Amino acid sequence: MRASFSRQAFMAGLGAEIAHLAPGEVDLVLPYRPDLTQQHGFFHAGATTTIADSASGYAALSLFPRGTGVLTTEFKVNLLNPARGQRLVAEGRVVKPGRTLTVCRSDVFGIEGDCRTHVATALLSMICLEGLED
Amino acid sequence: MRASFSRQAFMAGLGAEIAHLAPGEVDLVLPYRPDLTQQHGFFHAGATTTIADSASGYAALSLFPRGTGVLTTEFKVNLLNPARGQRLVAEGRVVKPGRTLTVCRSDVFGIEGDCRTHVATALLSMICLEGLED
Amino acid sequence: MRASFSRQAFMAGLGAEIAHLAPGEVDLVLPYRPDLTQQHGFFHAGATTTIADSASGYAALSLFPRGTGVLTTEFKVNLLNPARGQRLVAEGRVVKPGRTLTVCRSDVFGIEGDCRTHVATALLSMICLEGLED
Amino acid sequence: MRASFSRQAFMAGLGAEIAHLAPGEVDLVLPYRPDLTQQHGFFHAGATTTIADSASGYAALSLFPRGTGVLTTEFKVNLLNPARGQRLVAEGRVVKPGRTLTVCRSDVFGIEGDCRTHVATALLSMICLEGLED
Repeated sequence: MRASFSRQAFMAGLGAEIAHLAPGEVDLVLPYRPDLTQQHGFFHAGATTTIADSASGYAALSLFPRGTGVLTTEFKVNLLNPARGQRLVAEGRVVKPGRTLTVCRSDVFGIEGDCRTHVATALLSMICLEGLED
Repeated sequence: MRASFSRQAFMAGLGAEIAHLAPGEVDLVLPYRPDLTQQHGFFHAGATTTIADSASGYAALSLFPRGTGVLTTEFKVNLLNPARGQRLVAEGRVVKPGRTLTVCRSDVFGIEGDCRTHVATALLSMICLEGLED
Repeated sequence: MRASFSRQAFMAGLGAEIAHLAPGEVDLVLPYRPDLTQQHGFFHAGATTTIADSASGYAALSLFPRGTGVLTTEFKVNLLNPARGQRLVAEGRVVKPGRTLTVCRSDVFGIEGDCRTHVATALLSMICLEGLED
Repeated sequence: MRASFSRQAFMAGLGAEIAHLAPGEVDLVLPYRPDLTQQHGFFHAGATTTIADSASGYAALSLFPRGTGVLTTEFKVNLLNPARGQRLVAEGRVVKPGRTLTVCRSDVFGIEGDCRTHVATALLSMICLEGLED
C-alpha cells in the first residue's frame, strides 16, 4: 500500500503522507502549504476531499485480497467548517466490507496547535477490481 | 469572477482555466499534466472532483447578488469512467437557484482528440454568504 | 418489470404506477393522497424519494440481462421545492450503464394543473445481481 | 416534537414511533408489516430511508430555537445489508449544528431477536426555517 501511495503523483504533489495504517483504517496527513488554498486562505475543498477520498480508498484496499486494486465509484462529502490549521488529518474507516463494494467513511480534521476542528465528513463506495493491482 | 478564480492558489496550481461563463453556467478546462495523475496514469479523482466543484461554485456565484461569496456546503460525485484524455472539461450548471442555497450539477468529460468520455457527474449545494466577497 | 413492480407491497400501498417504460427510462406517477403527506400538507420526502429510487431502479433493470435483479446500493437526493400537486412524476434515466454498477438520475416533478415544479433531483447507483430475479 | 411527529400522516401510516429523544439525538422504531416490503420480502428501501431522514430531521429540530421548523435539503444514503428483522431502528444524530444548516448522520439497524444488522448509513443536511413552526 505504501508503494501504491507513492506512485500517486497527485498525492505526492500535494504532500500528503500516511500517518496510520491498520486493517480497515488509514489516516493521511496533509501539511499546510500556500498553494493548497482557496481565495480566503483556507485549505481548498479540493485538497480536503482528495485526502478524504484517498484515506478511505486505502482503508478499503487494506481489506482486499492480494493482487486486487481499488477504485472509488462515488462519494458524498459535507464540508462542516473552514479548513484551517497547520495540517489536515483524514481518517478513513471501513463501515461495511464487501466482496464487490466496500462502504467507507472519512472524517477530516484541521489541526492548529491543540485545537482540532471537524472540517468534513464523507461517505464513500469503493469497488474491488481483480486484475488491476494497486 | 475571473479575479476570484485567479486568487485560488490551488486551482492555479492545477492549471485549470475558465472556458465558458454565462449566467448559471461555467465550464472549466484542466489540461493533462503528469503530476495530476493517480497510480494508473489517469487524472486523479481529486483533480476531477476539484474542477467539478469549482465549475458549479462559479456557476452559482454568477447568479448571486454583488458583494456576496459562495461556499460549497456538500456535494456528491459518481465517477463513471477512467479520467483519461488530453484535458478534462467540467460543465457546472445551476439546477435550482435560491436565496440561501443553490443546487448545481457538474458533468466532467475527458477529451481525447474527437472523443469525449463522460468521466463524472456531481450534484452540489452552494450557499450564498453575505459579507464574504469572493 | 411490471410483474416485479406489482410484487412491491410498499409501492402498491403508496399507489405509484408506471407511466412510461423504454430502454433505460422509466417514469412513475404517484397521485396525491392525504396519508402521503408531512406536517405541512405536502408530499412527504419519504414518498418523493421512494418513487425517485424506484424509477431509477426499473430504468436500470430495463437494461440488465434476463434473469438478473436490481438493488440500489446508494443514492443522493436534493429536495428543491415543496412537493405539492395533484400528483408527483418521477423520471428515472440511466446515465451510465455498466456490467456491475449502473448510475442513474431521477428527477421528480409536482404536477398541479398545467404547472410543473421541480421537486427533487437524485443520483443513484444500481447493482446488477445474478441469481436474484426481479 | 412529539406533536409535530404525530401530524406527519405518512409516518403515522408507516407505523414509526419515537423510541429515544435527547438534545441532538432521536431514535425511531419501525415494526415489520407486510405492506412495508419490496419484492423479496425485506423492508423497502423507501421505508428505510424515510425513517433515516425523519430521525435526523427531529434530531436537528431538537437543537433549533423555539418557533422554527426543519426541512431536509438533501441527503445521501448507502444501503449496506438487506433490511430484514422484526423492526428497524433509525438513530439520528447531529454531527454539526449550525444557525442555518445542520448536518446529521443516521444509521439504520434491522433487529431480529438478539441480532442487530447495519442496514443503512446516511448523511443529511437540515435547514432551520423561521416562521414555519413544526
